[in-house]
Amino acid sequence: MDKTMDLLMAHRTVRRFKTEAVEEALLDRILACGLRAPNTGNMQMYSVVVTREPELKDKLCDLHFGQCRTAPVWLTVCADVYRYHRWCQANGCGEPYGNLLWLLTATVDASLCAQNMMTAAESAGLGGCYLGTVLYQTKAIAELLHCPKGVMPVATIALGWPDEEPRMSERIGPDGVIHNETYHDYSDEDIDRIHRVREELPFNQEMVRQNNVRNLAELFTTLRYPLKDNLAISEALKNFIDINWK
Amino acid sequence: MDKTMDLLMAHRTVRRFKTEAVEEALLDRILACGLRAPNTGNMQMYSVVVTREPELKDKLCDLHFGQCRTAPVWLTVCADVYRYHRWCQANGCGEPYGNLLWLLTATVDASLCAQNMMTAAESAGLGGCYLGTVLYQTKAIAELLHCPKGVMPVATIALGWPDEEPRMSERIGPDGVIHNETYHDYSDEDIDRIHRVREELPFNQEMVRQNNVRNLAELFTTLRYPLKDNLAISEALKNFIDINWK
Repeated sequence: MDKTMDLLMAHRTVRRFKTEAVEEALLDRILACGLRAPNTGNMQMYSVVVTREPELKDKLCDLHFGQCRTAPVWLTVCADVYRYHRWCQANGCGEPYGNLLWLLTATVDASLCAQNMMTAAESAGLGGCYLGTVLYQTKAIAELLHCPKGVMPVATIALGWPDEEPRMSERIGPDGVIHNETYHDYSDEDIDRIHRVREELPFNQEMVRQNNVRNLAELFTTLRYPLKDNLAISEALKNFIDINWK
Repeated sequence: MDKTMDLLMAHRTVRRFKTEAVEEALLDRILACGLRAPNTGNMQMYSVVVTREPELKDKLCDLHFGQCRTAPVWLTVCADVYRYHRWCQANGCGEPYGNLLWLLTATVDASLCAQNMMTAAESAGLGGCYLGTVLYQTKAIAELLHCPKGVMPVATIALGWPDEEPRMSERIGPDGVIHNETYHDYSDEDIDRIHRVREELPFNQEMVRQNNVRNLAELFTTLRYPLKDNLAISEALKNFIDINWK
């Protein structure tokens, strides 16, 4: 068996951490693995902000709604056109990358870097959690971390030595996600069958009961990620991009 | 030493491949590693289109400007709100995710899935290449692969058994990309020092000479990724998103 594949298959999200620090040398190796990730044109349009100072970490954690409070290391991975533009300017070449193409390109590249770091961390026995809330609080996080114009936080990893053994979360199977040759549309029966693994999970059924909703989809669309919030956050993101990504 | 970290540190982009196929069972394991990647709310808002049929593969390759023609497997990883919306609709819950927040969220999640597949493939001795051109030709690729509304190709990997031993590309060092506690702005000297590894590389110096430009930044900003193209592609992406991401 292949150890790396076994590691990838064993991923679990860790949200509670021991107090012991992540050694400097180990963290450096994890960061180095991030920097070796593939990226467009080898332009490395991303940056990683490593936050460990307790007070600052607490403020950052507040902006993530208090999640993963015990994590000793926070990695805020940013799409970053700023550093590249500084280099272009120094060479008399303007600032050609403050547009949507490079926002998406840099977001993909930042994410590849982030996932390399997550994989490296897990291979050393560390655990971590991605915090999607980075896109809820982008402006406030960018300000707290002193990000200049052209730097947009897009992925956050809270990292440390695990203090829990979390369950492995379920996944929709390959028949729901993988398409052969071209995208094959789903029948109503497909949609039902694919999602049954979610709906029938005792944990999810308990969540539906506790929250007094009709079904799992209602839990997600009315309580966890409702339209009203999605629209408000999208508007804030649009404003942030309009002002800061150019 | 840690094998997985060694693997991540050894990444090289492979663009030329042997004719031998990637065995079905191995490909399935690689895809499974992708599906175990962390993702927001465990909603798995991505899909992977696996293209191997020679004629279709050739058309797809044409849309990527003929890059990686010999790759036997093409993975087109898509941000996908469509499948989730189908499930929401089936449960009487509308379509709350066709907005910017979830475009970015799904793009990050699709990228984490992609990088897991790349890592898994490399651990088996395969090689691959990300094709950033997926964002240049998004509409045409989405049409060729029959992607419905709500499905946007964001990352493409060409995969196969390596038929070359490419050089390891240089990287800007950690002092250029990693920020301690908060983002620390660069002095002009920093910008110069950070990028020297690029500018002094004989390969890059030869490219500057051959293309008769003043410096490496000019090569990137006028020949490889010029403003005019960036703006035109950004406009096309905006149109694609306006029409297809809702």
